[in-house]
Amino acid sequence: MPVNVLFAAQPDRWAQYEAPLRSALDALDLDYVLTTDLPAAKVDYIVYAPNSAVQDFRPYTRLKAVLNLWAGVEGVVGNHTLTVPLARMVDDEGLTQGMVEWVTGHVLRHHLGMDAHIVNPDHLWQNTPPPLSRDRPVAILGFGALGQACAAALTALGFPVRGWSRSGHAQTGVQSFAGAEGIDAALTGAQIVVLLLPDTPQTRDVLNARTLALTAPGAVIINPGRGPLIDDSALLAALDSGQISHATLDVFRTEPLPADDPYWTHPQVTVTPHIASETRSDSASRVVAENIRRGEAGEPFLHLVDRDAGY
Amino acid sequence: MPVNVLFAAQPDRWAQYEAPLRSALDALDLDYVLTTDLPAAKVDYIVYAPNSAVQDFRPYTRLKAVLNLWAGVEGVVGNHTLTVPLARMVDDEGLTQGMVEWVTGHVLRHHLGMDAHIVNPDHLWQNTPPPLSRDRPVAILGFGALGQACAAALTALGFPVRGWSRSGHAQTGVQSFAGAEGIDAALTGAQIVVLLLPDTPQTRDVLNARTLALTAPGAVIINPGRGPLIDDSALLAALDSGQISHATLDVFRTEPLPADDPYWTHPQVTVTPHIASETRSDSASRVVAENIRRGEAGEPFLHLVDRDAGY
Repeated sequence: MPVNVLFAAQPDRWAQYEAPLRSALDALDLDYVLTTDLPAAKVDYIVYAPNSAVQDFRPYTRLKAVLNLWAGVEGVVGNHTLTVPLARMVDDEGLTQGMVEWVTGHVLRHHLGMDAHIVNPDHLWQNTPPPLSRDRPVAILGFGALGQACAAALTALGFPVRGWSRSGHAQTGVQSFAGAEGIDAALTGAQIVVLLLPDTPQTRDVLNARTLALTAPGAVIINPGRGPLIDDSALLAALDSGQISHATLDVFRTEPLPADDPYWTHPQVTVTPHIASETRSDSASRVVAENIRRGEAGEPFLHLVDRDAGY
Repeated sequence: MPVNVLFAAQPDRWAQYEAPLRSALDALDLDYVLTTDLPAAKVDYIVYAPNSAVQDFRPYTRLKAVLNLWAGVEGVVGNHTLTVPLARMVDDEGLTQGMVEWVTGHVLRHHLGMDAHIVNPDHLWQNTPPPLSRDRPVAILGFGALGQACAAALTALGFPVRGWSRSGHAQTGVQSFAGAEGIDAALTGAQIVVLLLPDTPQTRDVLNARTLALTAPGAVIINPGRGPLIDDSALLAALDSGQISHATLDVFRTEPLPADDPYWTHPQVTVTPHIASETRSDSASRVVAENIRRGEAGEPFLHLVDRDAGY
């Protein structure tokens, strides 16, 4: 009997994912059906995205796992009709690599003060070189697969990096901080702050008036994580006071960012349109196929979501 | 008898270098005099910069070596009154590290297409992520200490890197090209070209109408090397035709760049004011002191200039 795989992300993703998913599943030597249309009672695995039409999982009576195509699961983790294992995407070759490139690029952009040369209408020739990376402390809030990979790249370039997470993850060459008390130490004196936390009730507004005041004066905020991590009013106030000199934001509470949002017109804010990274269909399809192989072989799934922690 | 060291760079550098030079020389356990004013016949070593007041070396009858503070020696290498060893600065901790940061930052800036978000007056939300670094070939022309260090950083970030130099230098993970015939292969299909060559009669106009046509269409030129490496008219024509999509230039034939230079106003050119990197006084002073120690101990000097090659 074939393994029945339902592709239940939005239809426009099917064109992008069908071929790489088939290619990855073909490599498994497995009898399978992959389709966007299957009777619920026959589905073994769902390839999923949180904005899927499938929101009630109760009819999927023989479902073995839901395999999310993206890293973020905040749109599905609270779904009480979902009782089988839920896996997040950890796409090292695509999503993680892209995030490392984006974060490293924007950290260097701010470190080097590039904007003053990219936009220089008065043609000023002010040749004071920037400090070296060793004098620019960077704090990364969120120290899972993405945060750790970014820390490794920034450490290799000479930046002193602090990593903060709920549980604390050790990494060579990185100062590690954990828990509610650790965040203050991670932020104190940081000149660049990178947000790579998941969106959970505990992480909302993690950057707020109190925590923004802990950074070095004139620090830069870079958010490729999730929009709700920032108290937007507090950030705008910190930008206006000078406590924060610039914010480069890739994610927002509402996306696309509404036309009247003050971030669009603030001179010290750079808006990027949720492009910091995305899952790449070829490498992500191999991760999905590997989890189906594991499920059929009775092996533990990769990247399972902790439903209590929310990610 | 003390070792007599004449500081003969421009006077404004003395304030910057006196303390770190004394600190580095003190560490040698050597009897020395360091000053900006010594009778020529008593000088053992000259700490030098090419724009120095000292241009006639013939009165320095017991001179053992000229120790240049900068990497570039084109302003002194042709001086026929200089017959003793001439050392360039190779300041790994300062100059090389700063160059790695600047080059990596601007490669990532162009790779990620940052400028479209930094300057986005119409508030466009166009969320197509860039390709990954593995699909962005980078050519580095000039593969000495600076080029090799930049190649290592870019390779670590996933970029396929080609390195070209006169003699060819092998480096793990880098495609190496040498000599007059190698440059065409190094440039063909490159999407980003970084210039880190010395200024010699052989390297002048190395980027010209013919070689600019070899890159991938829409390639980016990044020049933190020397101004004369580029045929400026050819580059402006290639920018206007679209063969080159952007040039980020840190060095120019005349510096500061004259107010009426077309580079200032070209929309696809970013001018940075010779800040890509500079010697840092603390680490450079240790390199100078090490060469004085070697001279006194009869050991070979570091970083000697090949007067025929010109660097």
